[in-house]
Amino acid sequence: MAHLLSTSCSLNFSSGCRPYTKPLIQDFLVFPTSLTFRTSKTPFGRLLLQGGRSQSTCTVHATTLSPSREAPKEPSYGVNESSGGASKSQRVMVIGGDGYCGWATALHLSKKGYEVAIVDSLVRRLFDHQLGLDSLTPISSIHDRIRCWKSLTGKSVELYIGDVCDFEFLSEAFKSFEPDSVVHFGEQRSAPYSMIDRSRAVFTQQNNVMGTLNVLFAIKEYREECHLVKLGTMGEYGTPNIDIEEGYITITHNGRTDTLPYPKQASSFYHLSKVHDSNNIAFTCKAWGIRATDLNQGVVYGVRTDETEMHEELSNRFDYDGVFGTALNRFCVQAAVGHPLTVYGKGGQTRGYLDIRDTVQCVEIAIANPAKAGEFRVFNQFTEQFSVNELAALVTKAGEKLGLDVQTTSVPNPRVEAEEHYYNAKHTKLIELGLKPHLLSDSLLDSLLNFTIKYKDRVDTKQIMPSVSWRKMGAKPRTVTA
Amino acid sequence: MAHLLSTSCSLNFSSGCRPYTKPLIQDFLVFPTSLTFRTSKTPFGRLLLQGGRSQSTCTVHATTLSPSREAPKEPSYGVNESSGGASKSQRVMVIGGDGYCGWATALHLSKKGYEVAIVDSLVRRLFDHQLGLDSLTPISSIHDRIRCWKSLTGKSVELYIGDVCDFEFLSEAFKSFEPDSVVHFGEQRSAPYSMIDRSRAVFTQQNNVMGTLNVLFAIKEYREECHLVKLGTMGEYGTPNIDIEEGYITITHNGRTDTLPYPKQASSFYHLSKVHDSNNIAFTCKAWGIRATDLNQGVVYGVRTDETEMHEELSNRFDYDGVFGTALNRFCVQAAVGHPLTVYGKGGQTRGYLDIRDTVQCVEIAIANPAKAGEFRVFNQFTEQFSVNELAALVTKAGEKLGLDVQTTSVPNPRVEAEEHYYNAKHTKLIELGLKPHLLSDSLLDSLLNFTIKYKDRVDTKQIMPSVSWRKMGAKPRTVTA
Repeated sequence: MAHLLSTSCSLNFSSGCRPYTKPLIQDFLVFPTSLTFRTSKTPFGRLLLQGGRSQSTCTVHATTLSPSREAPKEPSYGVNESSGGASKSQRVMVIGGDGYCGWATALHLSKKGYEVAIVDSLVRRLFDHQLGLDSLTPISSIHDRIRCWKSLTGKSVELYIGDVCDFEFLSEAFKSFEPDSVVHFGEQRSAPYSMIDRSRAVFTQQNNVMGTLNVLFAIKEYREECHLVKLGTMGEYGTPNIDIEEGYITITHNGRTDTLPYPKQASSFYHLSKVHDSNNIAFTCKAWGIRATDLNQGVVYGVRTDETEMHEELSNRFDYDGVFGTALNRFCVQAAVGHPLTVYGKGGQTRGYLDIRDTVQCVEIAIANPAKAGEFRVFNQFTEQFSVNELAALVTKAGEKLGLDVQTTSVPNPRVEAEEHYYNAKHTKLIELGLKPHLLSDSLLDSLLNFTIKYKDRVDTKQIMPSVSWRKMGAKPRTVTA
Repeated sequence: MAHLLSTSCSLNFSSGCRPYTKPLIQDFLVFPTSLTFRTSKTPFGRLLLQGGRSQSTCTVHATTLSPSREAPKEPSYGVNESSGGASKSQRVMVIGGDGYCGWATALHLSKKGYEVAIVDSLVRRLFDHQLGLDSLTPISSIHDRIRCWKSLTGKSVELYIGDVCDFEFLSEAFKSFEPDSVVHFGEQRSAPYSMIDRSRAVFTQQNNVMGTLNVLFAIKEYREECHLVKLGTMGEYGTPNIDIEEGYITITHNGRTDTLPYPKQASSFYHLSKVHDSNNIAFTCKAWGIRATDLNQGVVYGVRTDETEMHEELSNRFDYDGVFGTALNRFCVQAAVGHPLTVYGKGGQTRGYLDIRDTVQCVEIAIANPAKAGEFRVFNQFTEQFSVNELAALVTKAGEKLGLDVQTTSVPNPRVEAEEHYYNAKHTKLIELGLKPHLLSDSLLDSLLNFTIKYKDRVDTKQIMPSVSWRKMGAKPRTVTA
């Protein structure tokens, strides 16, 4: 990744956990613990917690919990009853646990009783610095986030800071944490980012594909029974003129029949990296007996989950810019600041969408119902389909209820994609396993709009318009000023 | 690639072209030209010919040509008649032109009147050194090969020594040579090599996928009209239970119909890298208008082509080892030295095969009939199907005619693959464009066997047995001693 770090930058961490200085709940008693960091040989830095498991928690031990905030004693997937009646928590490693979906998922799993470790290089924060972008919501450092969570719930989340492309680092994390499941969000996840220039395209595929290869090798080498839950994307399928199935399709051709991987037609170097991952993982399931679930996720909207709304230090990030922002979230920000909703091209582009509260629910369902050894299982992870025009209409209507004057404008489509097309994607497997969807409702849109209005002073309108063109992409390094 | 160069090794080149010292045809007059080399910043070294086109040929200018060896004046695809009646040769860059298929192709195209440049990092030769392997045939250095070709035919082949993963090097080669077509063989091409250990798996995907991305960006940046002819493999398809089509399949599903990319089921990290390439190339055809032909090649056998048999300095390599060797060639070597033919598992594995004389013919046909702008065209490049057992039977029969006692033994299959399966792959598109196949005949097998008998003293029988296991592959670096 060295080429992305060519600007002078450094990742600064304090050499010990500083006391948690902003407790909202006054009766917490907070004691810092000390940490030892080890420096990586890689360009990225690798911060690895030293020693055995008992020493390796980067958390603050709260001695008193507010009764009202104490973790509920509800039944949990995360606690397995052993034959002797004692319980042993499942251990889940969340790679990319500092990101938008990863952070929400890590807390949700921790709350449900899983033992959670976050593995993250924090590079997503670096992208913001390099591109001059920022989350709508102020977000705390991963260290403060984890301290706050411990203070509020008594639950520890272990932290391994490093790059999964560095196999030595990943090996140490596996040997130290001994995961039963790995949830892998740890990839560069923006299509426009991957289309900025050659260097970002190559970075995206190298980072995502080689990182996932390393995860597969780590599972084979250290935790053969471990279940890989890998985040893919509905964008892998493209927009075929037939129904989209969940991962596989049964084809009858010239009088013979077989069930084969569903054909993929990805439309950015990012989406392609996920297709490459899917193919690599499927092979290792067959060759090595890896158990894997590929979650082909739709576009995620919303920001609050039960856990992240417990405290502002737990706030999730909210991207609305032209590089990392996604359609519905960006439209809400645009409505809040009086910017026209920017529909790309004709607006007939239809995709699957889901609430971030369903993302965390889906991942937990996948973990609690693991794939069998050797099985490569694919779930389409979304709850509803919308076209861009339909989303714009919904936001316009919700804005009007709040007295906002919401306009819509069509901007030249920076992407190469069909703007009017058939789209019907199956998504029943997660429902069958117990997913209770949060459908996009007036009340959710009202609350999302109110949320963006609350933070509207933080909006940088220069970030909103698309700044990356699929067709004009060049080989030369490009500085994006959003 | 630094990790593969961790052993102490160096690439030695003389600072100027030494005189061609072994002319078989005595009436050649040979004059050396001088070269300037530039050193690369990459671990690999980059040797780039300096100056404008007139200075950038690494060839020996023969002033007199033997009439009997003079290039024939036959009509050639490589010469285009311009509207004014003058002819201008098509310029073809052959990436990987020092390898088995690449070398034979480069000479064939040169003979046909194309202006040819070879781009190669020579890493294939390094793999032999590192793994303790060697070609059955002694092969000359690329410099001597090109000098010899010039001496025999009067035709220059330009040479750019460097790594296509180094975009700066590749850019200079594109700007200097200005290709009309790029034939891309420049990838790590062994499935067993990619399954040795994690480091080779990651190397294979990184080298192949990022190298091809760079080629695509170079075409977009410098030669938008250039036709990419990319070597894929029939192994991308796996062994589905339905007929294999050429790249695409028309699917009717739930009452709707679409023509989609044929589903892929690759079975090694190498084969997967070719699937990733195909997906990346297809996307750039759509997004940027790249014109591309993906040649899904079967298993190549044979060694001699009209051009390589002109002189022993032009000899092609012939791999028979467990890592780079392929079934039929290896069987011939085994028969020659009295080693049992090693059938992996049940031997029902069926694949498409072709003579190397058809490889060079197919590539030329693709170049002469280029894809349209924006078209991603897929040809299945093989001429006949055989099971491993059928090949063993053919070699046994041919061996008996020559008085050899040929035995066959089944060895545990090191791969993960179906050993009995349906296989029927289409391969009509190249035939429709004019391919005249050299089918596997008794006479070809006789000559191949005689060829291996000629070189049998060079056979290292320790190299023959499979040494790489798909299932036992580990994450730790492994030294393979064949």
